[in-house]
Formats: sequence, C-alpha cells, structure tokens
Amino acid sequence: MGSTCVRIAIDAMGGDLAPKEIVTGALRAREELGVEILLVGDPEQIESVLPPKTNMALLEIVPSEGAVGMEEEPLTAVRRKPKSSINVAMDLVKQKRADAVFSAGHSGAAMASALLRLGRLPGIDRPAIGAVFPTMIASKQVLILDVGANVDCRPKFLEQFAVMGSVYSQYVLGVNEPKVGLLNIGEEDSKGNDAAVRTNQMLRDNNRVIFAGNAEGRDVLSGDFDVIVCDGFVGNVLLKFAEAVGEIILQIIREELPQGLQGQLGCAILKPNLKRLKQRMDHAEHGGALLLGVDGICIIGHGSSQAPSVFNAIRMAKEAVDNQVLQRIQSQDQSLQRESS
Amino acid sequence: MGSTCVRIAIDAMGGDLAPKEIVTGALRAREELGVEILLVGDPEQIESVLPPKTNMALLEIVPSEGAVGMEEEPLTAVRRKPKSSINVAMDLVKQKRADAVFSAGHSGAAMASALLRLGRLPGIDRPAIGAVFPTMIASKQVLILDVGANVDCRPKFLEQFAVMGSVYSQYVLGVNEPKVGLLNIGEEDSKGNDAAVRTNQMLRDNNRVIFAGNAEGRDVLSGDFDVIVCDGFVGNVLLKFAEAVGEIILQIIREELPQGLQGQLGCAILKPNLKRLKQRMDHAEHGGALLLGVDGICIIGHGSSQAPSVFNAIRMAKEAVDNQVLQRIQSQDQSLQRESS
Repeated sequence: MGSTCVRIAIDAMGGDLAPKEIVTGALRAREELGVEILLVGDPEQIESVLPPKTNMALLEIVPSEGAVGMEEEPLTAVRRKPKSSINVAMDLVKQKRADAVFSAGHSGAAMASALLRLGRLPGIDRPAIGAVFPTMIASKQVLILDVGANVDCRPKFLEQFAVMGSVYSQYVLGVNEPKVGLLNIGEEDSKGNDAAVRTNQMLRDNNRVIFAGNAEGRDVLSGDFDVIVCDGFVGNVLLKFAEAVGEIILQIIREELPQGLQGQLGCAILKPNLKRLKQRMDHAEHGGALLLGVDGICIIGHGSSQAPSVFNAIRMAKEAVDNQVLQRIQSQDQSLQRESS
Repeated sequence: MGSTCVRIAIDAMGGDLAPKEIVTGALRAREELGVEILLVGDPEQIESVLPPKTNMALLEIVPSEGAVGMEEEPLTAVRRKPKSSINVAMDLVKQKRADAVFSAGHSGAAMASALLRLGRLPGIDRPAIGAVFPTMIASKQVLILDVGANVDCRPKFLEQFAVMGSVYSQYVLGVNEPKVGLLNIGEEDSKGNDAAVRTNQMLRDNNRVIFAGNAEGRDVLSGDFDVIVCDGFVGNVLLKFAEAVGEIILQIIREELPQGLQGQLGCAILKPNLKRLKQRMDHAEHGGALLLGVDGICIIGHGSSQAPSVFNAIRMAKEAVDNQVLQRIQSQDQSLQRESS
C-alpha cells in the first residue's frame, strides 16, 4: 500500500443526513483513528459542511457527479451513473487509492457497485451482508450474515458465509474460537427444510469453522453463538425487526410508566435509573454492516446514519483493513477450493 | 352442539408444568368463562392436583395412556401412541364431545395429531400456526402466521393463510377490516424472492383479503398490519426471537430499575404501572398459538405454560368457538374453490 495509514473512501453524498453527518463523522475518525479520509461527492456541498479552516492533512475531496436515489433500481442506476459518488468511491478501492469504502446511501446500490467494480473474492459465489448484534452477555457480540444480500441461498453459499464470518469474528471482533450457528427452527440436526439439513451437514464436515449446531430464534441474542448464518431473507427480517423492537419497547415504557399521579412521581424518582435502562437498550452503535466476499472492504451504513455511526463504521473498516480480513478470507477459500477440486 | 356451553378438551399431561398448572388454569376458565372442561390424562395424576372437594360440575376427567415426549419424532409418536393424551383430546373434538382442544405439550405432536385425527378443512392445503403479537399501539394486536407448521410455503399456501388469518382477525380479535401484510425484505411489490413476488400478486388479486402490501421486519409490531403472512421458517425464527427479546428486556428492566434506594422507592410507587408494562410485553397473556386450517379449534400452548397462560388459551379457544371461526373459514374457502374451478 502506498501510504502509511489506512485510507477510507467515504461516499459523502449517501444517506438521509448527507453530507453533513457523514463528513462530521469522517473528520472525527481522521482525528481519533488517524485514518486518511477521501470524501467523495460534490465538492461544493462537501466544502459547505467542512468547519472553517479545516486542516486538509489526511483529507482529500474527490469529485463525483450525482448519487443513486433511494427509489432507484440499484443495478440500473449504478450502471447508468458511472460517476456517482458510490461508484467513484468503489473505484478508489479498485485503483488501490483507498483501502476501504463506506456508504450510508442506497445499500442495494453499494452492493451492486461493489460487485461490478471490485468483483467477488475467488472462491466466493455470493457476497453477504453481515451485521453485528449485541447479546445478553454485555461483553459478547454476534455476527449475523446474510442480512439482505441474497434472498435465496444454496447450502454452499451459507457454508461460505460461515467461513467468512468466522474470519471476521476471529480477526476483527477478537473472538478466539468463534462458534458458528445455523439459524433454524429447531436444535436437532434434522430440523428445517432440505437446504437447512444439508447446510447443517456441510458445516459439520467443514473443519474451517467451529460449528456449534442450529441456532433458534431465541438463541440469536443469547451469546452462545459468535456467528450465525442464514439466508438474506430471514436475516433481513430479523435485523429490521430487532432494530424496531428496541424502539417500540422504549415507547411502551414511556407510555405506561408515567401514567397517573403515582406514575409521574415514580418516574421522577427513577429518572437516573430509567436513563441507564435506555442506554442499555438503545441498539448499540455498530455503525454499519459489512459486505463480505467482494474484493475490497465495504461498510454499508444505515440510511439514517449520524456522525457517531459514521465514526464507528470507519473504525470497523479500519479494523478490517488492519487485520487483513480479505487476505484471510482468500487463504481460507483457496484451501476450500483445493479441497473441492 | 350437544351442550349449552363451550366444551374444551384439555391435554392435562402436556407441558413442562403439567398437570398442576394446566389443571389450575382450566379450573379458573371453568369458573370465570363458564366453559365445560374435559381434562384428558392420567386420572390419578389429575386428581392429585385437583383442590380438595372440587365441584365436578362442568368438569370431566377423560383417561388417557401416556403422553408424547418432547424428544420424540411427532408423527411416529402420535401414530404409535393412539391413547396418548393429545390423541384422546383430539378424538373428543372429532367425536363432537368437545368444541376445541388445548395442549401445551409437544407442538409438533399436537399438529400431527390434529392432522391425523381431525383432518384439514376443505380448500386448505396446509394448516398454519398463528401467533398473536402485541403491537406498539396498545389496543392493537397482530396475528402472524405461519410460525412453524410449514418450513416451505408455496404462494397458494400463503394466500390461504391470509384468508384464514383475516377471518380470525375479524371474528375473534374483532378487527373490522383486517389489513394483511406479506412479510418481505422491502416495501415494493417487486421485492423478495420469486415466491414472495408471486404471493404479492396473488394477494393483490384476492378480493377476500384487504392486502396492505409487503411488511418489513420493522413493520411487524408497528400496528399498521392486523395479519402478517410468512412461511413457517421465518415466522418461527421471528416468534422465538421476539419471545426471547421480551424476556431479555424485562430482565434488563428488573436489573436496572430497582438499583439504589431511590430505585427501590420508585419501583414500589410504580408497581401497578410496571405490572401493566409487563402484561403488555408478556407472551403469557396471549396464551397460545392457533392451529388454523384443521377441522377443529386447536390451541397450542407454550411448553412452559403456567395457569394464567392456560386460562388465556382457553379463552382464545372459547372465542374461536363462539365466533364460528371454522365455519367462516370454510365458507370463505368454498367461495375460493368456486372461483378457481
């Protein structure tokens, strides 16, 4: 790599709060993480949100033209707008001018652009989107993949997700021996549809993953598993459900607890404890989902990403680069390919 | 029907806390709901948990031999143990000696027994398990089906679930014009896999359901939908995940709120409000899941059902009988069949 520090290409135009929140989070990452930031977008708009007299060290503005709208069909839009911010950001990775890319824009477009510009890693049939969830055990997280890239998954794809997830869990999340679960409707190996049963067997036979068996819906947040693989349909439903459920329960608490005079008094007294409760339940700022399996580090942020999420996403990207996630996935997959040939 | 009040056959041997909690809940239902209770199981065990001098009006003990264990393969076990409690309870419905059945035992066995003993309703290819979830809106619930009976679903099955769910929502849950959603990974009609796209179209074309479009994971508990259809794989994952999340959050509340002297005081004052909060979040309040599409009213309870859940499940069963759910599903399906022929 040409420079001494990690370089992150940022799609400054992607997201509901772009460019302001994106740029703010990116600048903080430059300060605190020492990464080089390449802000991709409309220079005028980006400059308008930069604080006055911003130091331009480790900061570059890379012009792009237009962005993919949330309502656009991703593949078509990515093809029709070669100079859109997401494409230019991906190109920076392709040209080795950046080590990773972050976008909080249209996630389908980010995926399409990554596939078209970077391509898949050898040995990977389908890239997957991985999301990190908090668990019941405060110190443990669980990586769930796929949460939306592939609506239909063959057992082979799920096996590849398990290998990629294990690498990420081990080298980025720091889990020593990541336990992999297969999301299913029962613990027994025979449970689920045909694909689930076959996947279970393939994971049992795969000596590159530590397969801990089927994970039911109730096990997802238990902390018993470090990586859970599933198809992108159920994963996406689960991710969006989980995001909503925390907010809903906080709202129910807000509605029910202060009812009546006694309720108001009780809540006033409990104010500090309620605040702590909210902090624990607010879905932790994980920053973004990872697109695993393309030939580049890509972090996809939530459309509503604010500066702290952007910062956390860039930290994720840096950790993935620092820990050579791509190289490790490739070496796992090369041994996989050798085996199957 | 032979008797003037609703008669419920209770699998007194099914469930982790059987027969004690099952019988206690059933007796309360007899008192408060005026239903006739047929307790199916080992008479000695049942009698040992009946309070002394129990009035035997509207109460009958129907002997059975053995029960299906949680570890048994359901279909085999149900066939090999014709006199097990679940089978005898189903037979009571088949023989019109009972109007509905409740079991908190092996849910697969209950389903297998219902299929073998009662059969499917005409026009229904696959029965579905429906579960009622609370929503963000205190006065609204959402019925989700299938939550586990069918791991693979053809669009036609999902369409039938939508019709059955609408009937249940309207006539038992009292929703005037139940809005049906199709669980999917995006709002647009074109989202999801092939089956999802085709189901979307079928539901749009079906004038027996009010189709409100695709429901994403985040919409499940929003209160925007009264019925959500999905295949039993994703539904089961969602149900178990939701149950676990509720418990996890109640646990966090229990840990955080009473901390410190102020916390204890505040919680004492808030006791009634906390109780209401728990009720809104607790799945026990919903009693059980319904097996829709078999020729009989079947309510399947959680394995860990305690007396209040049993009571609520029996109330669900009574409401389904009172509101002629089976007859209404059949009349819908007959018109469906006429159309397709």
